[in-house]
Amino acid sequence: MQLKTIGIIHTPFHRPEGTPIQPSLSPGTEGWVEIFAPYVAGLKDLAGFERIWLLTWLDRVTEERLIVVPFLDKVERGVFATRAPSRPNPIGLSCVRLLEVRKHILRVQDVDMLDGTPLIDIKPYAPRLDHFTTSRNGWLDTVDFKNMCADSRFEGRAPGG
Amino acid sequence: MQLKTIGIIHTPFHRPEGTPIQPSLSPGTEGWVEIFAPYVAGLKDLAGFERIWLLTWLDRVTEERLIVVPFLDKVERGVFATRAPSRPNPIGLSCVRLLEVRKHILRVQDVDMLDGTPLIDIKPYAPRLDHFTTSRNGWLDTVDFKNMCADSRFEGRAPGG
Repeated sequence: MQLKTIGIIHTPFHRPEGTPIQPSLSPGTEGWVEIFAPYVAGLKDLAGFERIWLLTWLDRVTEERLIVVPFLDKVERGVFATRAPSRPNPIGLSCVRLLEVRKHILRVQDVDMLDGTPLIDIKPYAPRLDHFTTSRNGWLDTVDFKNMCADSRFEGRAPGG
Repeated sequence: MQLKTIGIIHTPFHRPEGTPIQPSLSPGTEGWVEIFAPYVAGLKDLAGFERIWLLTWLDRVTEERLIVVPFLDKVERGVFATRAPSRPNPIGLSCVRLLEVRKHILRVQDVDMLDGTPLIDIKPYAPRLDHFTTSRNGWLDTVDFKNMCADSRFEGRAPGG
């Protein structure tokens, strides 16, 4: 289970501090994705989609933690009940807006990843496949989503969690 | 970028033929996830969520293809514009219903993976983070979603695509 890097994501965010923690909390922030030459043929038909999932390898995370204090909370949670990056497999899942496909470049919006993050997969987003109505969303139901940005807690010398 | 298997997914599906291709096309089908001992602590708080994302390693896929005929279509598409499994990194993304967390076992519903599929990550699903309204969903807007099941096209000796 060895991953290949299929591209690199370019964003305005160079450090965890101040980086939005989810696309839904980063409306309008533009970035671009550079797809490596061996994979460009797989982009056919992608331009028809308004939004796409980007699966990323969160390469700035320094250690795996099973219990974390997530950015949106002050309580320790199991990492699988959070979207915190310090996971056994540090894979990020970001649903971004696709503005344009120009050869091997994707212009995107609502980015929440650090500049230079490796891309490992792209999937089309479609409500018919990806939208589910739920009435219970665990501890996230108690969050006011005002604290929108990351800090360095998952990037070595963390203050807590 | 070496992945760890954090658990194994058990489903009623032993062959691609007849396996639902998405959770939204597999309503009510039950399965269970066995989480390996080193990762069980990370399940804390997960039970509060009605739905969870399971990220899987699609280990039955035999080759990478950049152009595919997806299960839902008869036309060749770029693999990144589809959810077909024969991707450069064969990672599956399934939003399943979480029925129960019992120690290291998750009982789930709406499963769309083959029995024995390795699990690589779990993330909570929350509409506040994962639901986006879109008006353009590419070729998927033309699909009637009646052809709900897989066949063996991505598992060696494919008939096409």
